[in-house]
Parts: sequence; C-alpha cells; structure tokens
Amino acid sequence: MSDIALTLDEVEDLARRCLFANGCNAANADAISATVTAAERDGAHSHGLFRMPGYVASLRSGKVNGKADPKAETLSPGVVRMDGDGGYAPLAHERSRPLIAERARAQGVAALALVNIHHFSALWVEVEALARDGLAAFACTAYTPSVAPAGARQPFFGTNPVAFGWPRGNRPPLVFDQATAAMARGEVMIAARDGHDLPPGVGLDAAGQPTTDPNEVLKGVLLPFGGYKGSSIAMMVELLCAGLIGEGFSFEAAEYDTKDGGPPRGGEFMLAMDPARFGDPGGWLAHAEGFFAGLAALDGTRLPGDRRYANRERTPTAGVRIPQSLHDKILELSEPAPS
Amino acid sequence: MSDIALTLDEVEDLARRCLFANGCNAANADAISATVTAAERDGAHSHGLFRMPGYVASLRSGKVNGKADPKAETLSPGVVRMDGDGGYAPLAHERSRPLIAERARAQGVAALALVNIHHFSALWVEVEALARDGLAAFACTAYTPSVAPAGARQPFFGTNPVAFGWPRGNRPPLVFDQATAAMARGEVMIAARDGHDLPPGVGLDAAGQPTTDPNEVLKGVLLPFGGYKGSSIAMMVELLCAGLIGEGFSFEAAEYDTKDGGPPRGGEFMLAMDPARFGDPGGWLAHAEGFFAGLAALDGTRLPGDRRYANRERTPTAGVRIPQSLHDKILELSEPAPS
Repeated sequence: MSDIALTLDEVEDLARRCLFANGCNAANADAISATVTAAERDGAHSHGLFRMPGYVASLRSGKVNGKADPKAETLSPGVVRMDGDGGYAPLAHERSRPLIAERARAQGVAALALVNIHHFSALWVEVEALARDGLAAFACTAYTPSVAPAGARQPFFGTNPVAFGWPRGNRPPLVFDQATAAMARGEVMIAARDGHDLPPGVGLDAAGQPTTDPNEVLKGVLLPFGGYKGSSIAMMVELLCAGLIGEGFSFEAAEYDTKDGGPPRGGEFMLAMDPARFGDPGGWLAHAEGFFAGLAALDGTRLPGDRRYANRERTPTAGVRIPQSLHDKILELSEPAPS
Repeated sequence: MSDIALTLDEVEDLARRCLFANGCNAANADAISATVTAAERDGAHSHGLFRMPGYVASLRSGKVNGKADPKAETLSPGVVRMDGDGGYAPLAHERSRPLIAERARAQGVAALALVNIHHFSALWVEVEALARDGLAAFACTAYTPSVAPAGARQPFFGTNPVAFGWPRGNRPPLVFDQATAAMARGEVMIAARDGHDLPPGVGLDAAGQPTTDPNEVLKGVLLPFGGYKGSSIAMMVELLCAGLIGEGFSFEAAEYDTKDGGPPRGGEFMLAMDPARFGDPGGWLAHAEGFFAGLAALDGTRLPGDRRYANRERTPTAGVRIPQSLHDKILELSEPAPS
C-alpha cells in the first residue's frame, strides 16, 4: 500500500475542499477541517482524514446539517446549553468555548450541555483548548450501543469516552481521553487483521462467552474497561450526556439513526473549573507541578497525552503520511456531487 | 468466632458512647455514629463498627479533632469551601449538604471543596444524601499512597474512590462508589486468608512483577483498576482533591501523617447538579427511568447499590451481627481514657 506525504496545510485544505463540495458552509468546513488537521498533527490518524468518507456520507444523506448554525442559551448561571442545529460538533465547540470559559471564571465551575450534534472526533481537542485557557475541564459523550454493561451480553452503552484536562502554565496541559470500552472496535479489527490475541476482558463472542479471539469479539460485543467499575463509569456518562442534558441515550440513538456511515445524533457534557476560584488561587499551579514531578520520578510512568505531544513536535517537519488510496478517495469525494 | 446481634439503635449508641468517651463532642459523635450506623445498616461492615478502633486511635493521639467546628466559605457563586477543622468528615458533610444543594439549585452546578478533614468511611453516604434531595452528585477523595500508577512499581496514588448518585424520584437513588484501585487492600487480605488467587491486574509483588498471589501483592503494591485507564481516573482524583482545592496529594499526606492507625488529613471534592436546571426540566426523570428499564431488561445486569439497598430492607428485622471480640473491644475503648 503506497503512502502520500502531506503538509498540515495540505491536510486542512484537502479536508476543507471536500467538506465544501459536500454541502458544508465556510464556518462548518473550517471548524471540522481544523479538528481533522489537529488529529493528523498529533498522529491520531483514526480521527483524521480517515474519517472523511464518514463525514461525507452523512452530509450527502442529509442526516447531518453542513450549514448548522449552533446557538447558545444560558439555562442557569452555571449552565450553558448549546444547540448544535444538527451539525457536526466542531463549530458548536468553537462557539461554546468562550461562553463556558467565561461562566467558569465567573462561577468557579460551569457545565456545557451540548445537544443536537453529531460527534465524530476525539474529546481531547476540546478539553485541551479549555486547559490552555487555564481551566480544568472534563468532557464525555455517549452514543451507538457497542458495549455490554457488566454482567450482560448485549450492547447497550456506547464506547462513551471520558476526557480530562489540567492546565500547566507554560507547559502543554495534562490531557487524557479514553473510551470506557476496554478497547475501540477499530483496535480489535487491527488485532484480527494481524492475527494477535486480545487481552482478557475486551469482549464476548456471539454466544456471550468471554474470548480473547478478536474475530469472535467482532461477531459478539465489547466489554467496558476494568469490569464492573468501568461499566459504572460508562453508565455515568450515559446519565450525564443523555439523562441530565435531555439528549438521547445510546440505545435511543440507535433507534433513530439512519446508519448512513456517519455518527448518530447525540449529546456531550462538559465541565470547566477555574482553579483560581477554588481554595488555593496563588499556589495551585506549582502544587500540581510538584505532583507531576513526583509521578515522573517513578520508573516506567509517562503522562497520558505525551505521545500525542511528541508527534505534534515532529509533524511540521516530517509531514503527515496517508495511504494513497485514502487520498484518491477524498479527491473523488470532493468532485461536485451528482445532482 | 462468636457473634453478637445488635439493633441499629444499639449500633448507633455503641458508636456514640465510644466516641464521646474519647473526646468527641455531641455534634461530632452524632455525625460519625450516624455514618457508622448507615454502613452497618447496608451491610458495609468494613466501614462500620469495624472502624471504631481506628477512630479512637486518632482521637487519642490528638491527630483528629473530636470537637471540630467545620466552617463554610463561599469562594465563588458555584464553589463552597468547607474547612473541616481537623475533624472526621461526617460533621463537615452534614453542614455542607444544605449549602451545596442550595448552590446547585441556584447555579445548576456547584462544587464543594472539603479540606482539613480525615475521611474514614464511604462516599456513597454523601452522594446518596444529595441524590435523595433530587440532585445528581459526584464525589472523590484521595490519600495514603497504596496504588502504583500504570507502568510504575511503587505506591503513589491513594485508593482514590469515586462515587456518583442519580436521583430517581420515589425510588432509591442510583449510587455507585468504587475505589480506583483494582481491589481494596482488605479484600486482598481476605483472599490471602482464604487461599484464593487474585484475578490478573490487581497488584505487583515486591520485585514489581505482576502476580495473582495475594500474599505477594501484600508485600508489593496494588494496581489501578482497568490498567492505564483506571490510572488516569486515579490521577484525575488526585488533581481534583488536592491540586484544585488546595489540599495534600496522597504522596504528601503520607509525609505528614503520624500513622497512628487512623486516616491522614486530606480533602474531598464534590459536585452537585440540579437536573431541573439543565436541558429537560420536565422530562429528565422519566427519560432516565427508561434507561434504567432498558438496562434491567438485559440478562445478567444489576444496578450498583442494589445489594446495599437489599441489605437495608433486611436489617431492621434481622439486626446487625458483629464479632463478640469487636463488641468487647469497643466497650473497652469506651471506658474513660487513662488520664
């Protein structure tokens, strides 16, 4: 399989043109292509250009609104609700960010209820942006049942990622972003392709029995990470992203989704906290740096996000490599749609 | 080992007298004994009377203030700081509860920064109380390093429990409360006593190698639940309960603790959210009940907390059984302290 090398500008341009050609307006095409480019920049290829065919499928089917005009409403002094107008999440996030940051600085803690969006990328982009503004941030999202709750054998929860960001002054923020599924479905597919066994606890076969054979898991169901404890966290994500903010639970999203290849409609819950409005306004930054120093002093540890940051340093020089076939496909999708 | 049967009133009376005899004033003795009794009522014996010798040790050593007078301060519209005055957590919680509930109803979301306390019980008591008031609640606490971060072989994180509560109208709230350690140290001790192997991933031996032998883990270190993902959650708990609110990280708590048998000083972070101030004020309760119904319809699932609630139903009739030796010990500790 031959690869093609692209600069980050070329990645962004490729994504933007393709989105334009498929009905996005400038605001949405810019926001989505920035998110796609950030993923490629950080080596998170599965959230990068690889997703373009999925973006296009849901724009062409009309499920997702490429001209979405997300609008905010302040529901209470600490809660901003952003209606994504049926579009992809990036523009809604771009418009939400200053609002939730302002609320967090005013109140100490603020929540964002993001509804009526289609989320098709990673959460780290969103928590990192708030952490770069000096705020601690938490985010989670739910939809598409693919994970069996602890004890069950049928999909009911989404992969339900949770992300957290912590501001570190002049250093890049501490950021983690992880599915509450033991493993992403894509990773199981790669293990199947490469003939590797899975670690125990990743999934069940079609008969509901534990297996480490990736081919059997692909016919069965994923499990939450960490057994019943991870299952509880996945359940909390459902309650925050659906019950609390009034969007669909994963099992409901499956019922109304058109399965056109793109993500179903759903919600996202975010929290932002201003450490300067908590108990140690002058000392919190140095205090937490002491914690990170203690952690780094232990053999074998590394901070979540470090690999992405290392990729980010390298990419402007090394460029991004994507399969020639993907590049060709995106160019083909960028031709004017048949009318 | 012979047991003795007690009513819940007798449990509470036994705890209260013992705390009084060891320097607690009425407010603290009442609050702590109510927490101990709630644990016995729900069959959570490891947080019940079993803890009395530990409570007494730290009262006698003077590490914990039995006459603590916790005081609140509103740091920002959404943040209440409660200084526990060096006492055990229950009285600080009792006084915090109406304040954080009022803030959550006013702001939609509010945080409690509980500092200068000694936490020696479970978090479910605290999130359940807020959930019974109609609020969604999250709580976590950190201290005493006993868990190795993912990749490391030395203790650095506490067992760092996280708890969540969701209000269910006339039904008991959905509540989970779980350590971010793969297993509590006490459970490992029970496996060692009973000659059972541990599941993989619970701990490392003294040489830092994975083992399923509980005796080897007791000489080594515990691991986070769910590998690196649980480790990230444990790290988030440290940042919320120490970095954000200005209390000690687990590794710092170990440095200043007197190791008298009771818990070190530490902090707790709580969030309360009012679903009536989010996106679906009229429908959230029924919407979430639909989710619980879907979950219950899957074979093999049960809700976290169900076992405790079942115990709670049974206890008023069946009473509480504790070892005679523990009962004798508590009576002995309730004698006037040597002056």
